[in-house]
Amino acid sequence: MAEEMKKEDNTVYVGKKGVMGYVLAVVTQFNNGAPDVTIKARGKLISRAVDVAEIVRNRFMPDLKTKDIRIKTEELTSEDGSKSKVSAIEILLAK
Amino acid sequence: MAEEMKKEDNTVYVGKKGVMGYVLAVVTQFNNGAPDVTIKARGKLISRAVDVAEIVRNRFMPDLKTKDIRIKTEELTSEDGSKSKVSAIEILLAK
Repeated sequence: MAEEMKKEDNTVYVGKKGVMGYVLAVVTQFNNGAPDVTIKARGKLISRAVDVAEIVRNRFMPDLKTKDIRIKTEELTSEDGSKSKVSAIEILLAK
Repeated sequence: MAEEMKKEDNTVYVGKKGVMGYVLAVVTQFNNGAPDVTIKARGKLISRAVDVAEIVRNRFMPDLKTKDIRIKTEELTSEDGSKSKVSAIEILLAK
């Protein structure tokens, strides 16, 4: 159970706030002992997720590796029941 | 030499035009015999590159595999000599 929660903690969802806030969130998780952190984003925020991963590696933690990058399509259901598709990315950084 | 040019042909640079134009460019290259196609984009256009890859696979060529995804940081020099950094992505689709 504790392990499960820890895994959930190792994810940073990138939203519309400034890039550096997400960079700090990733660095903090590594400093707290996480062996890896997954950066997730959807739609137009995918570009920002890539920025976050690159800034973490280039400015703060050069020893990190971009271990895996996955892209997929997610289906969203809006309040009126209509469905739309959106691209998503998951970037796995690891020590 | 011919081989070199062929390799260069296997790349689609995603710009500011509509997504479907780039989707068509990728599908066309596969139909012309390319074994793989690399989709490249920088900055905010990274999201669109992911859309292109996902639409090609989900709607047109479901047998394709997302064989490799790389992210990196490129340095741009503007006309006045100032430098800025921009994230970039390369998505390799293969049969």
